Amino acid sequence: MYEVFEHPQPEVNGQINFGVTIIYPGKVGKEYYLTRGHYHTKETAAELYIGLAGEGMMIMQTKDGQVSSLPIRAGDVVYVPPFWAHRTVNLGKEKLSFFFAYPSDGGHNYEIIRQRGFAKIVIEEKGRPKVVDNSARANLGWPSTHCECLATQVYY
Amino acid sequence: MYEVFEHPQPEVNGQINFGVTIIYPGKVGKEYYLTRGHYHTKETAAELYIGLAGEGMMIMQTKDGQVSSLPIRAGDVVYVPPFWAHRTVNLGKEKLSFFFAYPSDGGHNYEIIRQRGFAKIVIEEKGRPKVVDNSARANLGWPSTHCECLATQVYY
Repeated sequence: MYEVFEHPQPEVNGQINFGVTIIYPGKVGKEYYLTRGHYHTKETAAELYIGLAGEGMMIMQTKDGQVSSLPIRAGDVVYVPPFWAHRTVNLGKEKLSFFFAYPSDGGHNYEIIRQRGFAKIVIEEKGRPKVVDNSARANLGWPSTHCECLATQVYY
Repeated sequence: MYEVFEHPQPEVNGQINFGVTIIYPGKVGKEYYLTRGHYHTKETAAELYIGLAGEGMMIMQTKDGQVSSLPIRAGDVVYVPPFWAHRTVNLGKEKLSFFFAYPSDGGHNYEIIRQRGFAKIVIEEKGRPKVVDNSARANLGWPSTHCECLATQVYY
């Protein structure tokens, strides 16, 4: 479903891990292919994404129930601030690829999301992507707030 | 000579400052236009660069006399590890633009380089760029070692 090409650095404060993720196009049922999603083990660690090719969406949430989403396409920069879990969805018919960078000592916590899922999922409805509540998840009805996740462009 | 479009984040461990630098094409005498160059105030902070457009070179050095250089063109990723000062040179006839990202609490120390210059400069000789000793600098003859600065590509 997806591949990660990472250049890990020493797990030392001040270093930055980086690489490229490719999510192939496709769906499981109505739900688009996506990454597993993670909080950082060190929750104060942010993460930076740059879209390289394809059409995607970053979906984000916090432990206290905030949710957000931003588009990620070629040239889009998405800054995921500390404390926000994040996963990436391929909404297109081609590969979605993006560059990522995060503090090397940030770590990944996949477990919470593996156990509880994300509050929102992205499904195809009438041929178009739609962000909906994750009905497989007990904890629904979280407020749909907007996070301070910064979206900008790499080209000036 | 150059412009920086930065998105600074809070100066807090775990956050990442990022942005885009554009260096215009041109020379002062034989020397190509370049950025001022800096060590990080917190010397354990690395920095990540991604070439967006144009033809350039990253030149790097350490306080104990190591020097290195790497090309930076569209799609090139250059990882400048902790303790390496770095500056970027536009070798082309067009704008050189690149994305940068570094720990928000890394800071910049421009002063050492302002006072002492870089060990190496890049000049045009017979129409081509050449890395030479900086004769304006007292401390010449540093060994031309190769650093662990990682060069890779953003496209897979």
